[in-house]
Amino acid sequence: MRIDIITGFPKILEQPLNESIIKMGRRKAAVDIHIHDLRDFTTDRHRTIDDYPYGGGPGMVLKIEPFYRALKKIFETQDVAKAHIVLPSPRGRTLTQSVVTELSIKEHLVFLCGHYKGIDERIHEFFKIDEISIGDYILSSGEVATLVMIDAMVRLLPGVIKDINSAWTDSFSDDLLDVPYYTRPEEFEGKKVPPVLLSGNHQKIAEWRQKMREKITRQRRPDLYEKYLKSIK
Amino acid sequence: MRIDIITGFPKILEQPLNESIIKMGRRKAAVDIHIHDLRDFTTDRHRTIDDYPYGGGPGMVLKIEPFYRALKKIFETQDVAKAHIVLPSPRGRTLTQSVVTELSIKEHLVFLCGHYKGIDERIHEFFKIDEISIGDYILSSGEVATLVMIDAMVRLLPGVIKDINSAWTDSFSDDLLDVPYYTRPEEFEGKKVPPVLLSGNHQKIAEWRQKMREKITRQRRPDLYEKYLKSIK
Repeated sequence: MRIDIITGFPKILEQPLNESIIKMGRRKAAVDIHIHDLRDFTTDRHRTIDDYPYGGGPGMVLKIEPFYRALKKIFETQDVAKAHIVLPSPRGRTLTQSVVTELSIKEHLVFLCGHYKGIDERIHEFFKIDEISIGDYILSSGEVATLVMIDAMVRLLPGVIKDINSAWTDSFSDDLLDVPYYTRPEEFEGKKVPPVLLSGNHQKIAEWRQKMREKITRQRRPDLYEKYLKSIK
Repeated sequence: MRIDIITGFPKILEQPLNESIIKMGRRKAAVDIHIHDLRDFTTDRHRTIDDYPYGGGPGMVLKIEPFYRALKKIFETQDVAKAHIVLPSPRGRTLTQSVVTELSIKEHLVFLCGHYKGIDERIHEFFKIDEISIGDYILSSGEVATLVMIDAMVRLLPGVIKDINSAWTDSFSDDLLDVPYYTRPEEFEGKKVPPVLLSGNHQKIAEWRQKMREKITRQRRPDLYEKYLKSIK
């Protein structure tokens, strides 16, 4: 997978995209990430990327030209028909694990990082853009939302996680939340690991885990639990 | 506000916490952020922070001792009674703008960054922990979820955004999504700014924006629109 990211704040992204799972994904060539600095696509002396909103009101808006030029530049060498352009935005469709899976099978993703009040709306008149919201809250930085989507996606790419089964036992993979996990030591400051997990009885462990997942989901997320009940009918 | 972050991957956080709005928040002393490297609280030669899960299965679990020791160290100088400990986790309550507001008025926040399959569950037996999920999807990195919460929160702190009114016109501030924004130039590659925004008629602009917000919310997020209709009854 190829990922291009257009951003006015490349420093927010550089280090996080070179750590842990994402680093692993890049090292294994599962993903090829290119960061484009919006300021390289400005033409004025001050390299201006934002300006006041028409119609007044507080907050700044990112200008259309630098994004337009950056996209044109990318599509000089890449096939626009194969690209899926994503704009993290509170007005987009809500990110879920199934949207993550959908993104993870794309050949080429381009992320446009909004900032402040967002990007000049006319960008949608030039390119087909998939607006995605990571949740019902407001960030100052589309860069952080982009990191969320890339982190969620890269771990699903072939060869990145050692045992891909790890991803299929996660929360949301079947509408149930994940179980609690424990590791060594067996006893810490008087607190012990649940005995069943030490029993070596795989059948019993699997049953306990399934029961725990159902219990936790019922208690914490009745909305998911209802979906789960429908799915197993 | 003081924020402590306990993490096995401090490099994911350092740069993003020194850019844009969060940098502004730190510079204006609205927020004082301390990052603690989990590996500094290990005692073995290899500085091990993770281990295999009891009961078997794929994926690694973060060990309890380094978190326990890091927390004890923080509470040597800070009052545990004034601290609100947050664990980003898919099993937590869902983050919304009202949860962000709730966090933004705390005096002291401590973030525990999970990674891989999570942290040994027994940590909950020693500290009162608020588990919060940023959305129904799985990240490899609690660091990225921590960034999301800090970015969302810091912009609400007094003095960080120039005009705090900017935050109150955002999406979700009253169950409606935000309007589209436009900035200069008036015409770009044949595409024009909606004329009403250039009219200078503030009454008309406000009416247009309210109509757009209702229309966009109705189309894209019928769930929010229903909430909005109930709230204005």
